[in-house]
Order: sequence, then C-alpha cells, then structure tokens
Amino acid sequence: MPLTLCDVGPRDGLQNEAETLEPSTRAELVNRLAAAGLPRVEAVSFVRADRVPQMAAPEEVVAAIERRDGTEFSGLVLNAKGYERFAATEGLDRVNVTLGATESFNRRNGEMSREEALAQVDAVLAAASVPATATISVAFGCPFEGEVDEGEVVALAERLGADEVVLADTIGVAVPSQVRRLVERVRGLGKRAGFHGHNTRNTGYVNALAALEAGAEVLDSSVGGLGGCPYAPRASGNVATEDLVFLLEREGVETGVDLDALVAVSDWLEGVFGRQLEGQLYRAGTWP
Amino acid sequence: MPLTLCDVGPRDGLQNEAETLEPSTRAELVNRLAAAGLPRVEAVSFVRADRVPQMAAPEEVVAAIERRDGTEFSGLVLNAKGYERFAATEGLDRVNVTLGATESFNRRNGEMSREEALAQVDAVLAAASVPATATISVAFGCPFEGEVDEGEVVALAERLGADEVVLADTIGVAVPSQVRRLVERVRGLGKRAGFHGHNTRNTGYVNALAALEAGAEVLDSSVGGLGGCPYAPRASGNVATEDLVFLLEREGVETGVDLDALVAVSDWLEGVFGRQLEGQLYRAGTWP
Repeated sequence: MPLTLCDVGPRDGLQNEAETLEPSTRAELVNRLAAAGLPRVEAVSFVRADRVPQMAAPEEVVAAIERRDGTEFSGLVLNAKGYERFAATEGLDRVNVTLGATESFNRRNGEMSREEALAQVDAVLAAASVPATATISVAFGCPFEGEVDEGEVVALAERLGADEVVLADTIGVAVPSQVRRLVERVRGLGKRAGFHGHNTRNTGYVNALAALEAGAEVLDSSVGGLGGCPYAPRASGNVATEDLVFLLEREGVETGVDLDALVAVSDWLEGVFGRQLEGQLYRAGTWP
Repeated sequence: MPLTLCDVGPRDGLQNEAETLEPSTRAELVNRLAAAGLPRVEAVSFVRADRVPQMAAPEEVVAAIERRDGTEFSGLVLNAKGYERFAATEGLDRVNVTLGATESFNRRNGEMSREEALAQVDAVLAAASVPATATISVAFGCPFEGEVDEGEVVALAERLGADEVVLADTIGVAVPSQVRRLVERVRGLGKRAGFHGHNTRNTGYVNALAALEAGAEVLDSSVGGLGGCPYAPRASGNVATEDLVFLLEREGVETGVDLDALVAVSDWLEGVFGRQLEGQLYRAGTWP
C-alpha cells in the first residue's frame, strides 16, 4: 500500500498566511515542491478572491506549473462553480472537493447547510473528469460545535461519492486513538482514507503516524509548516512536510521525497516571508 | 503502572535559555509547577556556575521550595562533588545522576571518559540517601558520534546501579520504533524505564507516546517547551509539559496535572522571558 504525501502548502498553508504572495511566487513554490519529489501537490483553490485574497488568480498559478513525472497536481473546490473554473484551466490532475462535518461549520465557512454542501460535492463529483478526493473538514472537532460525533462523520463519508476521503483535523484537536478509529472506519467503507492534520497543539505528527498505521494512504502536510504565522492569533499551521518525511523515512516508510531538496524549499520560503517558519527540521538540520 | 511526569523545565529548560533567571524566580517556577500538580519537578542541578550560569546557586532555589504533598523534587548531578552539594541542601527527594551514552559526549560535556563518568555515577548511587534516577544522555544519537549502538546503551543501562533509568534523546533525533525498542530492553533488565525527549525535529511527542506504550513509567518534559529559545541557533527545547498532558489526558492517561493551572505557568513564563515559548497549547488554548 503505497503512501501518497500531498503538500498542501501552496493552498492551505498560504491561505492562512497574513501575507499574500503573487501568483508567480505561488507557482514557483508548486514547482519547487514537485522538483523535490512530492507525489502530490495541492497547488490552488478556486474560491472567491474577495474572501480569500491569498488564493486569487489560481488560473495564473496553474498556467505556470511545470509538469513533472511522478507528481500529481490537485486543486481545491467547494462547489460546482469552483469546479467550472477548475475544469477550464485544463492543467490539474485531481480535484479535492471539501465540506465540513458539522452544520455550523458549513454555514459559517460556505454559507450553506450541510445538506447543501453535500449536494455541491455530489455535483462536483458527477462533473469531474479527473480523479477526485473528498475532504471532510473539522472531522475531529469543530470550532463552533466542539466535539464531533464519530458516527456522523462515518455516515457522511459513506454518502460521499468519492473513493478517496481525507479526514481533516482542521483545528488541531485530534489524538491518535481517534484518528486510528476514524481512518479504520472509513477504510471499512471500501474507500481510500487520508488524514490532514494541523499541529496546533503539537499532536499533528503523532496523529499522522497513527493514521498511517491504521491504513491511511494519503497524508497532507505543508512545507515549512506554512499557515502558522506567529503574528496571527491562535495560528494553526499544518504539520511540516519535511519534519513528517524525516519521521517517516527514519521509520522505514518510503515517501519518494528528496529531503535535502525539500529543506531547501523551506529555506527559500523563510526568505520569501522574512520570518522563521514553524517547521523545525529545516532549522535543526537533517540527521545523521 | 502509574505514569510519573517529571517537569525538567527549571533545570534542562532554563539551562538552555539565553537569559539567566534569578534563583528566586527559578524557585517560583518550581513552586508553580508543584502547585499545578506535577508529580515530579527537577528543580536544580549542581554543576559549575562558571560553565552553566543559568544553574548558579541551586542551594538558594532549594531553600525557597514550598513542600507539597504529591510532588517529588529532584536535582541533577554529574559527579560525587555535585552530590555532596546536593546532600548538603537536605531539601530534595530524588537525585538524578547523568552520563552520556558515548565516549565523545562524556569527554566534551564532562571532561571524563565514559568509564570515568560511570565511576562517578556509581559513587553517587552508593552515597545517595534518597531514591535515584540515572539518565543516559544521547541514548539515541550523539552530536559528535552520530548514530548510537542500541546494544551499547542497553549494556550501559545494565551496568548502572540505579533501578530507574531514563533514556534521553538529547538532540531530538529518535523515532518511535527506536524509543519503543530501547524502553523495552531496559525494562527487560528489570529496571523502571523513562524517556526524556526533545522536540528538535518535531518527533518529541510521538516518541513520548511510544515510550509510554512500551511501558515507560517516567516521562520528562518542560513547561512551555522551555529551552527552545529562537534566538539561540539550532535551539532544542524539551517537549512542552502542557502539550504532552493534553495528548495524554485526551488518550485517557491520567497525569494528575491540572492543565489549566499548568497553562497559566506558561502564560506567566512568557511574561518572564518577554517572548513566545515553543509550547503550542498555551497559545491555542485547551479544548473542548
């Protein structure tokens, strides 16, 4: 069962940074990650630029992607309208369509009920001409509703017409036993399971490893742990891809990633943002 | 098998901070940790003040400790001379005597060969009138020798006359399978095993949990992840006690610690140092 590491830095990472990067810089990040051997890179999202200015002009980013064997480029959408823009770029290999596990999260995040969000996901999946992932946000805890019922998440995963379901710990509250159980239950539905963890409370890496041990085939992470800008209150970055690769490779899990090349991407990003990133490995150095 | 969390912040944390705190402030830290319910607090070390100014005047710190039921106060020593000072304070419940796993580490850190360091440990253990822990530094990797042979660490643990042996990942390079194996092998010697992890490469929490799963009965950590001062190059803090407590309690492991009180200690420490600490939980907040 091969593991697919997906670097969501250009999307989830950058959208949580205070500073907005130019599309050309975002494309350069995507290309650098692909060159470091990332099996999958979430390059863009097709959302409203007035709501998420950091993700404006995804078409320009996609146009500047340098195709590379062994790297799949994905884009995130929330609804049918986003998928139309996705499809028009003709440059992406996979669509990641997302909705929240709870009613409140969908209403606050997408101004839809959960049923409406589900209908949008269905419409995207029906229209998709490329492989699709469905990501369930706040699957382990919701900022508006608190604890999330595990059975409800499984029921939602079952209703999603995607054969790959990524469970997202959006606010960084999950612990390994929870992750293990939910991954196993999603796999029990006959679907490929993935895990998307934030390191908000330092549980991101232990959760990622638990997901893998439970049979997850996709792990999301962001180069440098992007998204944890210290100037944003309660910042909440993804686990850092290079730190995760270090852990996995030392545990004998092949990732396909060139760790030194990936560390160089974080060094470059530190210069781009002019601040220290959350990732620890690029500062401490690889070992031995 | 009850778990003993040992907060080494007043010792390992503070000795790796650029700023030196007054003995009265260090004692206040010790007392605040005890008040938060920490089962064990490593309060001081008896080392040369010209070498480690952050640890100067341990006698003053010990004299200001407010005794508290349920908290054991320990002090670290490297040799017989340090133990003489330890014993003279008459205020500590446990001695932690340490040596390195490798020849080079002992020579660079204590100007002794490993055999000489072992003789010092033996002398301390023979003289000790309180319970003793022996900590093996760089048990998973050495900054001077690189990879450390697991069998050699086990052989060293066997020769140590202490019934509690803490395995320290001093430079933050261990991964869970390594930790699990070494903890199991030390337990196989009939000793209580502990783990002391640094989060230098974001493996500290996953390692601590692996140690616990393998039967470790002592876990070291530092409130706030002290010791990871961002202004020090390649800073290397311990795992943050409150982040570890969050993880453990959410996994159903009782720690005896009042998490809110512990978070308040990190809030206070942030003011003391005037900078953000490495710990994530005290910034993100407890949950739910």
